[in-house]
Amino acid sequence: MEAQGSTFIGFDDSFEESKAVLFGVPFDGTTSFKPGTRFAPSAMREDSWGLESYSPYQDKDLEDLKLFDYGNLEVPFGDKKKALRMIQEMTQEIIDAGKIPVMIGGEHLVSLGPVKALSKKYEDLHIIHFDAHTDLRKDYLGESLSHATVLRRIYDQVGDGKINQFCIRSGLKEEFEWAKEHVHLEKFTYTTLEQRVETLINKPVYITVDLDVFDPSVFPGTGTPEPGGIDFHDMLEIISILGRLQNVVGLDVVELSPKYDASGVSTAVACKTLRELVLATIK
Amino acid sequence: MEAQGSTFIGFDDSFEESKAVLFGVPFDGTTSFKPGTRFAPSAMREDSWGLESYSPYQDKDLEDLKLFDYGNLEVPFGDKKKALRMIQEMTQEIIDAGKIPVMIGGEHLVSLGPVKALSKKYEDLHIIHFDAHTDLRKDYLGESLSHATVLRRIYDQVGDGKINQFCIRSGLKEEFEWAKEHVHLEKFTYTTLEQRVETLINKPVYITVDLDVFDPSVFPGTGTPEPGGIDFHDMLEIISILGRLQNVVGLDVVELSPKYDASGVSTAVACKTLRELVLATIK
Amino acid sequence: MEAQGSTFIGFDDSFEESKAVLFGVPFDGTTSFKPGTRFAPSAMREDSWGLESYSPYQDKDLEDLKLFDYGNLEVPFGDKKKALRMIQEMTQEIIDAGKIPVMIGGEHLVSLGPVKALSKKYEDLHIIHFDAHTDLRKDYLGESLSHATVLRRIYDQVGDGKINQFCIRSGLKEEFEWAKEHVHLEKFTYTTLEQRVETLINKPVYITVDLDVFDPSVFPGTGTPEPGGIDFHDMLEIISILGRLQNVVGLDVVELSPKYDASGVSTAVACKTLRELVLATIK
Amino acid sequence: MEAQGSTFIGFDDSFEESKAVLFGVPFDGTTSFKPGTRFAPSAMREDSWGLESYSPYQDKDLEDLKLFDYGNLEVPFGDKKKALRMIQEMTQEIIDAGKIPVMIGGEHLVSLGPVKALSKKYEDLHIIHFDAHTDLRKDYLGESLSHATVLRRIYDQVGDGKINQFCIRSGLKEEFEWAKEHVHLEKFTYTTLEQRVETLINKPVYITVDLDVFDPSVFPGTGTPEPGGIDFHDMLEIISILGRLQNVVGLDVVELSPKYDASGVSTAVACKTLRELVLATIK
Amino acid sequence: MEAQGSTFIGFDDSFEESKAVLFGVPFDGTTSFKPGTRFAPSAMREDSWGLESYSPYQDKDLEDLKLFDYGNLEVPFGDKKKALRMIQEMTQEIIDAGKIPVMIGGEHLVSLGPVKALSKKYEDLHIIHFDAHTDLRKDYLGESLSHATVLRRIYDQVGDGKINQFCIRSGLKEEFEWAKEHVHLEKFTYTTLEQRVETLINKPVYITVDLDVFDPSVFPGTGTPEPGGIDFHDMLEIISILGRLQNVVGLDVVELSPKYDASGVSTAVACKTLRELVLATIK
Amino acid sequence: MEAQGSTFIGFDDSFEESKAVLFGVPFDGTTSFKPGTRFAPSAMREDSWGLESYSPYQDKDLEDLKLFDYGNLEVPFGDKKKALRMIQEMTQEIIDAGKIPVMIGGEHLVSLGPVKALSKKYEDLHIIHFDAHTDLRKDYLGESLSHATVLRRIYDQVGDGKINQFCIRSGLKEEFEWAKEHVHLEKFTYTTLEQRVETLINKPVYITVDLDVFDPSVFPGTGTPEPGGIDFHDMLEIISILGRLQNVVGLDVVELSPKYDASGVSTAVACKTLRELVLATIK
Repeated sequence: MEAQGSTFIGFDDSFEESKAVLFGVPFDGTTSFKPGTRFAPSAMREDSWGLESYSPYQDKDLEDLKLFDYGNLEVPFGDKKKALRMIQEMTQEIIDAGKIPVMIGGEHLVSLGPVKALSKKYEDLHIIHFDAHTDLRKDYLGESLSHATVLRRIYDQVGDGKINQFCIRSGLKEEFEWAKEHVHLEKFTYTTLEQRVETLINKPVYITVDLDVFDPSVFPGTGTPEPGGIDFHDMLEIISILGRLQNVVGLDVVELSPKYDASGVSTAVACKTLRELVLATIK
Repeated sequence: MEAQGSTFIGFDDSFEESKAVLFGVPFDGTTSFKPGTRFAPSAMREDSWGLESYSPYQDKDLEDLKLFDYGNLEVPFGDKKKALRMIQEMTQEIIDAGKIPVMIGGEHLVSLGPVKALSKKYEDLHIIHFDAHTDLRKDYLGESLSHATVLRRIYDQVGDGKINQFCIRSGLKEEFEWAKEHVHLEKFTYTTLEQRVETLINKPVYITVDLDVFDPSVFPGTGTPEPGGIDFHDMLEIISILGRLQNVVGLDVVELSPKYDASGVSTAVACKTLRELVLATIK
Repeated sequence: MEAQGSTFIGFDDSFEESKAVLFGVPFDGTTSFKPGTRFAPSAMREDSWGLESYSPYQDKDLEDLKLFDYGNLEVPFGDKKKALRMIQEMTQEIIDAGKIPVMIGGEHLVSLGPVKALSKKYEDLHIIHFDAHTDLRKDYLGESLSHATVLRRIYDQVGDGKINQFCIRSGLKEEFEWAKEHVHLEKFTYTTLEQRVETLINKPVYITVDLDVFDPSVFPGTGTPEPGGIDFHDMLEIISILGRLQNVVGLDVVELSPKYDASGVSTAVACKTLRELVLATIK
Repeated sequence: MEAQGSTFIGFDDSFEESKAVLFGVPFDGTTSFKPGTRFAPSAMREDSWGLESYSPYQDKDLEDLKLFDYGNLEVPFGDKKKALRMIQEMTQEIIDAGKIPVMIGGEHLVSLGPVKALSKKYEDLHIIHFDAHTDLRKDYLGESLSHATVLRRIYDQVGDGKINQFCIRSGLKEEFEWAKEHVHLEKFTYTTLEQRVETLINKPVYITVDLDVFDPSVFPGTGTPEPGGIDFHDMLEIISILGRLQNVVGLDVVELSPKYDASGVSTAVACKTLRELVLATIK
Repeated sequence: MEAQGSTFIGFDDSFEESKAVLFGVPFDGTTSFKPGTRFAPSAMREDSWGLESYSPYQDKDLEDLKLFDYGNLEVPFGDKKKALRMIQEMTQEIIDAGKIPVMIGGEHLVSLGPVKALSKKYEDLHIIHFDAHTDLRKDYLGESLSHATVLRRIYDQVGDGKINQFCIRSGLKEEFEWAKEHVHLEKFTYTTLEQRVETLINKPVYITVDLDVFDPSVFPGTGTPEPGGIDFHDMLEIISILGRLQNVVGLDVVELSPKYDASGVSTAVACKTLRELVLATIK
Repeated sequence: MEAQGSTFIGFDDSFEESKAVLFGVPFDGTTSFKPGTRFAPSAMREDSWGLESYSPYQDKDLEDLKLFDYGNLEVPFGDKKKALRMIQEMTQEIIDAGKIPVMIGGEHLVSLGPVKALSKKYEDLHIIHFDAHTDLRKDYLGESLSHATVLRRIYDQVGDGKINQFCIRSGLKEEFEWAKEHVHLEKFTYTTLEQRVETLINKPVYITVDLDVFDPSVFPGTGTPEPGGIDFHDMLEIISILGRLQNVVGLDVVELSPKYDASGVSTAVACKTLRELVLATIK
């Protein structure tokens, strides 16, 4: 009787006919400070119904795409390796069926799952990454698998020169130093995005958006607010540039922690970012 | 003994001597998702006392104008027709006395009341409208009177070419299509405002501000946060342009839902917007 | 075992070896509307651990400076004179040891304490002040010592032409009038900051930042939200200009009221502002 | 993939095989003070999954009953007559199929719908009513259909001597006076419940529980907290007595306003009350 | 137009005709931990309109008494001596006119004001005091005037054997020791209340209710929750006993901190306690 | 300068001289629904300073005992086995030094750590357990180590007839069945506690209190509110009975989730329960 909230708005086709498959990963098992990203996928599905499926920015409508919402993975808390394995298998299933995975986290560590599956299929996989934090630590509090190390673990999969980071505004000095040798890291802004996208137009690209790339005035719903980020108009411009990519093979939005923003604004920002990203890159 | 909060700051003259009359309409009866705009008029009166009546932007002071605060209309919940009738009658009373109505909503549907009264007096009534949403639906969930249809109902009153919409960033595709024929609708921005104001300098103009025109980072206190809006500096510029109008015959600010923003910031934004609007347009 | 939160991040040296000494003043005794700044120093210490000590903006690290955190002064509520005396004595102790005082308020009145001590040592003390409000009232609700009069009381110490105010957007008309004769007051913006800093390069300067200088979208954690302020990028630019000063003899950040912003964003903004200020001005 | 939350726990059978049919009515259109009961049905479904379906009190399990959850009625806001008509039709459909209606409100006015349908089928329909308030006003703010008049409207359907009210602790003097002639009203307590139940053992009985019968310490999630109510152990005893009834033909729980109790306790109380009521009276 | 909230319900007579005069004291200047009782008088006035003026417990109605609401005293923050002087003068004015003072705090220190005025008029003034805390310290953090010393200061006014304390469940060991010599102190319960009231039937009695005498489950809206208190039914019984007193010369309810209980329950408890107290003791 | 909050009140002796050693375990890694018990130890330490160290119930003072607060264990999130090992080692260190371990959780799983260490030292270790839930599942969501299985895992350590459960009001039917054979389980109440304590007077006993044994009206600060629990007076009676035990070898209080109760009441209840437990059982 009341289907609102059980799927993300516009994701109402069947798995078989779909071009892209959405799944949620309610996992925040390595979050050391303030947990809560586990609540993001359900919150986003529910509040997406306050949005239109039509984008006046792109003059496109989610209803015109074939999109399926798989629901959430039931990942075990307290076993990050098993959680990552489940995510990787889910991704494998989707790409085996010739579809594009679209993931809602959860904490940023979950991004390692799709990358592991996709980097097997695409030898030349490139990463475009938006974040407040470098996430390039070798390990964090003695653990190699963590939200603070996830891009370093992704680097272990894809290798030198494949990771492109934008808008980074926090990290250890040694992370910034290490980055100079191994990845493309732009601090604070995304002025080099356009040029990077040009070189990747037809390459297989995975896009990962840690939503704390937004300024906390725009997006307070995060466990680690870091002032100095981008605003929503910046994100629209970023997405407009990303829309030129011809081979986006997967994408995710992660790190919404909806309970830290009772007004619902952060969830709305996350939903609209996902709507615009999907409309721009799923072709 | 303690009058603070019983009137909006600076609205301390009598009805008789006043140039403009403020009234609140605590009505949110057609709000389908998250009710709460009924609390706006009282919240704005109370928190207005945290502001100064003097504007350093315009170097003007509300104390130098003759302004009366009538209090709130006691509108019945669950009877939108009766509520609208009461608002229309209130407006009639004010304009019969040669004064300018200034209304605080409530949900956006309440704007239909003043327009009905004013469009009888002014055949050539024009509307200037700021909003995140088109509000141009023919009906919404089977109802013709709704916050989502209010500008369409206002159109029924004033006709083709009289409505000017700015900063719109959400709606159905068919609303945007319909708008092309019947109203002036500028998406996202207000670059055409100056030119529109020029043509309306001496015309009777009603100004309606749905406060969700602000970006939710500036104004989270709304039931339907829609990222991508304007900031407060934009609003100051808008008001500066509106200040050129010589015949503003009424105005309203609507859709503040104060309980969704416990910090009080949204209420402060609403109050300061109203202060600046009144200082700029009541002459 | 668990020291996190007992000091501000990076302030882990001893008093003796330190260059600058931080102390908190949990005092909000003259706050007439919404108290709560008393909770700021502890909240900032605790949440500072969610930040890095390294600044990618300045490529500097708090760990490379010698900094001591003295903890909080135990000021009595309901006795503002005694509180101010304690703050002045604390400052005296720090400057007698040849160190630079760094204070976290508390309400803005606390800034009078350090200025009283410093103006005795430096005859030619200059003030650089960022705020939403003029704070220049002669008295407020009959009291001469108040958050709303503090810059006027500071003026009583330092005299004509020594106070430089930026980004001011609220006050009584008479305050703005008075300011024209006695202080440098720039409304809304900080375009004259660079030129003022040039003339003060080698002069003794005290910097006081009322955090409500930020727009409430950036910093909702205040008892008196006043829309129209600066954003975090503006603050970074301001700090970059302040970094040219060669003789900053003290500084404070005041008026964070952490409980009005449950998301923790305002506290993060306060912490990062303090980190950047210290990195730029403590030499 | 994720069915949790889409039905009330244990209500997982089909309509056809079911003995009782649950439906939600998210309507709070006549609530004059603090709206929000519209959110109750969905909140209860979601949080019911934090409960067990097994009751150690009664040593019974919802899984052993045949129960269907129909979802929510999509009632229009701002049209109470139409809303009541839809509820009545829904009830009719359920009783026509030989099943027992179980309703989650919404505000108390919704109880009029099932009573209208049931009083046609059962000439001798009796009401057992738990509440803080009499709800016996002839009209309220000029309206005859209101949460404050609902038992009076039910009286119009069932007539003298059919309504049994318990634990009532608030009302106008004239309501208590009127009650003496027309209904069985026990103030504050339920000492006469057992005797009333004895006389109604085989009669058709409709049970309506306004959850504000609980003390607000137990159940703060209501728009009108009224100290002096019962606790959960009282409710268990009440339900144990109600369990002797052999012909309960319908029941409802109304007036949970989940957003006023962020801890989730009130929703848990509502869920467990419903679980125990169903286990005791659906046979 | 909208008077709701500007007076406490039922206090709608003029000063001249009134029997009792209510005034609020929004003062929390000595609160060392969590301020906020300053908001109580206004919150109670506003929320009192959710209550009936009729009490089914006593079968009495506030409308049948002559009662005046004076509004709030504008006490200065940060000057407790001046605040107390203003309260004393207010009380003097009321008793000079032959009326009974009814005060809403504010923190408990405010009770000293009425006692000072009344103890001059009534040599034989007795105090009946309900509280979680002894409040008998000689001084607190070096201050002699404090919420934690107020009963000791009252003792200084009225002397040995005049103070009767009930339900006390927290204090220093030395306070309990001191009490044995000088006051009647009953720990945890009020079993001796009836007997004490008998001896005071015709004596002048001042009643002071620190609302934290309630268990925090009933009344969470306090800065210092102390488990183990009484419930609302206990309070009704207490008030029923107090109703036998023939010469209550003043009363207060203090220490509601409404912002710590967003559900509004604590404010409702405070309002209903005051309604019942007034109905029982003002004759 | 400001030590308040860094230790639990009254725990201010050194490790060497102490009789009992407190440590916190901020672990909620297996919490499947609403995490947050990780914040309990720090919240309890901080808010304990709002309590007195003196108990008027027992006429004893924590200051008269020798007590040390070790701080928190830095347990890794996402590795429950390592976390349990660290807790076991901490306990071992404490009992090797001849002292009594007192633990603050964290989720209930942490109780397995002390029991593992203590059951090696005391062959005849008995458990007294207060809880809303049986916690006797063989496994939960496929995991053998979980908050929902912890008493079963403790059973694996201590064997038949050693576990005594009181006030249990929720669980699967099979858990209650299994319990009949293997443990002493009293549903809802603690009427058999006195008799059980008599038989254990000189036996080594470990006490574990899942604070959700309280009714959620008393203790809303939990992720899984379960109506129908005990109140604070019950707990005082329970503690009074436990005070007869002569050989309590360890104890814990677990499952406070402070952020779900913004009023701070739940944290106060937890603190006072711990104070009373320690005063009664540490000899």
